[in-house]
Amino acid sequence: MDFGFELLSTDPTGARRGRITTPHGTVETPVFMPVGTKASVKAMTPEELVDCGVEMILANTYHLLLRPGEGLIRDLGGLHGFMNWKGPILTDSGGFQVFSLSGLRRIREEGVEFRSHIDGAMCFISPERSVEIQEALGADIIMAFDDCTPYPADRRYTEESMELTHRWALRCKRAKRRLDQALFGIVQGGMYEDLRARSAERIVEIGFDGYAIGGLSVGEGKDLMYAMLGATVDRLPEESPRYLMGVGTPEDIVTSVEMGVDMFDCVLPTRCARNGTLFTSRGKLVIKNSQYARDGSPVDEGCSCYTCTNYSRAYLRHLYMSGEILASRLNTIHNIHYYATLMRRLRDAIERGDLSGFKEDFYSKLGLIQ
Amino acid sequence: MDFGFELLSTDPTGARRGRITTPHGTVETPVFMPVGTKASVKAMTPEELVDCGVEMILANTYHLLLRPGEGLIRDLGGLHGFMNWKGPILTDSGGFQVFSLSGLRRIREEGVEFRSHIDGAMCFISPERSVEIQEALGADIIMAFDDCTPYPADRRYTEESMELTHRWALRCKRAKRRLDQALFGIVQGGMYEDLRARSAERIVEIGFDGYAIGGLSVGEGKDLMYAMLGATVDRLPEESPRYLMGVGTPEDIVTSVEMGVDMFDCVLPTRCARNGTLFTSRGKLVIKNSQYARDGSPVDEGCSCYTCTNYSRAYLRHLYMSGEILASRLNTIHNIHYYATLMRRLRDAIERGDLSGFKEDFYSKLGLIQ
Repeated sequence: MDFGFELLSTDPTGARRGRITTPHGTVETPVFMPVGTKASVKAMTPEELVDCGVEMILANTYHLLLRPGEGLIRDLGGLHGFMNWKGPILTDSGGFQVFSLSGLRRIREEGVEFRSHIDGAMCFISPERSVEIQEALGADIIMAFDDCTPYPADRRYTEESMELTHRWALRCKRAKRRLDQALFGIVQGGMYEDLRARSAERIVEIGFDGYAIGGLSVGEGKDLMYAMLGATVDRLPEESPRYLMGVGTPEDIVTSVEMGVDMFDCVLPTRCARNGTLFTSRGKLVIKNSQYARDGSPVDEGCSCYTCTNYSRAYLRHLYMSGEILASRLNTIHNIHYYATLMRRLRDAIERGDLSGFKEDFYSKLGLIQ
Repeated sequence: MDFGFELLSTDPTGARRGRITTPHGTVETPVFMPVGTKASVKAMTPEELVDCGVEMILANTYHLLLRPGEGLIRDLGGLHGFMNWKGPILTDSGGFQVFSLSGLRRIREEGVEFRSHIDGAMCFISPERSVEIQEALGADIIMAFDDCTPYPADRRYTEESMELTHRWALRCKRAKRRLDQALFGIVQGGMYEDLRARSAERIVEIGFDGYAIGGLSVGEGKDLMYAMLGATVDRLPEESPRYLMGVGTPEDIVTSVEMGVDMFDCVLPTRCARNGTLFTSRGKLVIKNSQYARDGSPVDEGCSCYTCTNYSRAYLRHLYMSGEILASRLNTIHNIHYYATLMRRLRDAIERGDLSGFKEDFYSKLGLIQ
């Protein structure tokens, strides 16, 4: 089955309810993709992800290139076979990790030279190489290799960086060989509304299966992020999926869905889980707090996840304080379930044409956690 | 349902096939109990343990006393409710951990004063206190508080330590209040055959629901261990379960079952798993070895565990090298399944009256791992 996107309905706010089709199944949007950086969503099995309501996951090209290498994964059945995940997968291009993890990087027209954060070895990724790696990994959706503009950056730097991203996007499209993978373009443009608009127009002009908004959530603050998102999203074609990369908190997701975004990914639910922070319908719960030491109630009363069904806050706190692996597991199950349930509720609200009502209810409960 | 033990059949070698009855269900013996030190068998959920074939687990009184405290666990439904394990549980007395973990300890007639290995606080456990803690934890089988004789120890020290264990055993029996828990006595006697025999006779004279052999696998070497086991086990009553504490390797278990032992516990399968050592029918496999980097085969061809059914050696090696939590999970599932399957095969062999045949087959395959 080839890649496709169907826009099923639109809410009065502009929020979109859609469906992505891939060779590994369909995905209901808006969708949140948990991050499986090194071919594992940390602490989770594929079956547990499915039980939590996850339909699609993301893996990081940069990490998998460095270890175990894309050739090994290709030879062992691609990412799907290697990690035993039967649903759709999206790989990023490696561009963002080169930007955020590599101590030293040299950006040239040809591509980026960088030091591995594992062993310091010099590596090189070009648009063509990124596509080649991603074709070996075999995800359902692959991303164009972009230059993530840092924040802050002056207009001239931002514009040059953006133009480079555009040239690289074209090279990625030309380098692509596999017909069973979709390729998404990435909009840059830093924190300049007109550059964002120009970038969106140019990336759409090149033409991709879907469009990502990159270079946000890099330290710019919420107001600026939403201003840039607003300057971008309306210039993207209605009939294609829109993906806001690396975002974010539940509140970010609700707001961005309202603005017309269809896809999200973020390490927040998994990373917070391992640090003992749990998302609930009433706000965040920090499990190490002593108030939970003898608390026999579940993390979230209304939650139907495996963790809330079977374990008390007191037990979860004990596991966390004791450094037990099961702490990371049970906390991650809960947070992933929370995110998947949030997305399902957002989809339901859009179908009902009542995202505003959902949003009001959502915000009225936040901060009520005890 | 009260505690009971039924001897179902005996193999020509002397190996025993039995069944333990507890308030939380029956346990087929010979049985191996995975260790859930801090109310969690590391990296595993209760459901996964059951799927691996585990019927009974062990938890450590010493660790739970220090954190989170037995009163908290009692108030949250006892160990069963607290950790969501619905099957039988055995708690040790705390004696062995005071011996092995506490930097400083002072043994008196009344009990043992020791420093917590967590915060250095001074603590005290007496036979009465150990029973009190274990009654609060609520396991199905609790253990008498004993003095584990170190190795090496001279005859005089060993004899005095053994006599203290006998006096403490009697005090434990007298202190016991709960009628729904079974109490096992522990034989000591160091590395002296006649003391072992005397200890077994005295502990049997006091009379318990089952009998444990303590003070072995403390550095004495295999020959000495089996000599001491031989001097002990034949003096224990046929109609009661026999438990060899803290043992051991698959080979140890096969030999000890042949000598008439019914119950075992050891951290080996779980600890080795986290260190990347996997037990297979052909010997131990060290997953980090580079020979497995591109090995698409499962850990053990004949194994039906979740890990072997779904993942390659190459993926397990990648997870281990990457420090992923899933490495500990998948490795632990495999090792626990290996131990549970070994016990099932031992039981089948005893039922067939062919433990010798099983043993021959077992040893013929060891060391053939590739």
